[in-house]
Amino acid sequence: MLEKSSNEFIQELASKAPVPGGGGASAYVGALGMALGSMVGNLTVGKKKYKEVEEDIIELLQKSEAVINNLKSLVSKDAEVFYPLSQAYRMPSSTEEEKKKKDEVLQAALVDATMVPLDIARNCLEAIYLHEEYAKKGTRIAISDVGVGVIFCKAALQGAKLNVLINTKIMKDTELKNKVENELAEIERVGLAKADQIFEEVENMLKS
Amino acid sequence: MLEKSSNEFIQELASKAPVPGGGGASAYVGALGMALGSMVGNLTVGKKKYKEVEEDIIELLQKSEAVINNLKSLVSKDAEVFYPLSQAYRMPSSTEEEKKKKDEVLQAALVDATMVPLDIARNCLEAIYLHEEYAKKGTRIAISDVGVGVIFCKAALQGAKLNVLINTKIMKDTELKNKVENELAEIERVGLAKADQIFEEVENMLKS
Repeated sequence: MLEKSSNEFIQELASKAPVPGGGGASAYVGALGMALGSMVGNLTVGKKKYKEVEEDIIELLQKSEAVINNLKSLVSKDAEVFYPLSQAYRMPSSTEEEKKKKDEVLQAALVDATMVPLDIARNCLEAIYLHEEYAKKGTRIAISDVGVGVIFCKAALQGAKLNVLINTKIMKDTELKNKVENELAEIERVGLAKADQIFEEVENMLKS
Repeated sequence: MLEKSSNEFIQELASKAPVPGGGGASAYVGALGMALGSMVGNLTVGKKKYKEVEEDIIELLQKSEAVINNLKSLVSKDAEVFYPLSQAYRMPSSTEEEKKKKDEVLQAALVDATMVPLDIARNCLEAIYLHEEYAKKGTRIAISDVGVGVIFCKAALQGAKLNVLINTKIMKDTELKNKVENELAEIERVGLAKADQIFEEVENMLKS
């Protein structure tokens, strides 16, 4: 899906085609945010002024690349898990037996459809932590890009959250539902506050 | 720039190449957000259940397309205004005369470099208003996508804001600086609160 042009991605997102949807778009925006962090890292490496943090930045760049790759593959995974779910919704439900069968298939498909956006949220949290390091150690010349990057990752986390909730809402396995929603709440609690804090720090640097 | 693949866009964003940077990426994320609004509109049109709002939705879709096109062209414009600015920074400043010349060129380039992200912020505000309408009138089946779309537009607005501030920070034309910063503050005041309100409404619908 990401091999097509950016223009086509926008066009397909806007269309009524089922994929890409909000989940895949969240993974993509998370990858764009992390890429801005990497840009700051790449602008820092090799600069005499930042020699002392060079090794840290190289390590950060490797971690950032891993997060970008995860999020890119989650764009595809989100599309993959949507199909079985949409098929399940279309199963007949006239008789009791049909209803039972449909419910079984639907509930199984829901598990995968929930885990993908949860994984997107996890990667966005990691991306936010990496931006915290770029804000501390990255070149001051690109400090605004740390702010833009982290606010994209925050939005991507929030987008992923809604895509978890649309699935857990109808999940009958209450143990799994609670486990997922608790993890998500914790990711949100930590991630949103951290992202806001980094954004505010950047904004204050630009204003002073 | 948007004719290249999405993968390439991520890669070039992550590189130390000067463009695309945080400003262009903000315009792009705004376009992705608005595209999600359009998706909701396209899923609503032609549905018997939403016959009553069909004309409104068609009008919303036209407005959304205009915003997407504006934001797409702002991705390119942001790259175009960066070059003269980067050239101005590289001008010599050893003598008083050189300093004076450099300052003139730099201040002129700053005006264009400021207006582009300001225009991105304006379009993101419009996108947030359009999401408000999609939240009211769009198909309930895709309500989560309204939430994801609006939170992307909010992040894009915030990203554009930082890119205005890096330029107004060193702008010597205080009249223009104040005018721009006042407009931006107003866009931010209205836009962020509105986006949060729509996101919260969507979230509450998903939780209930």
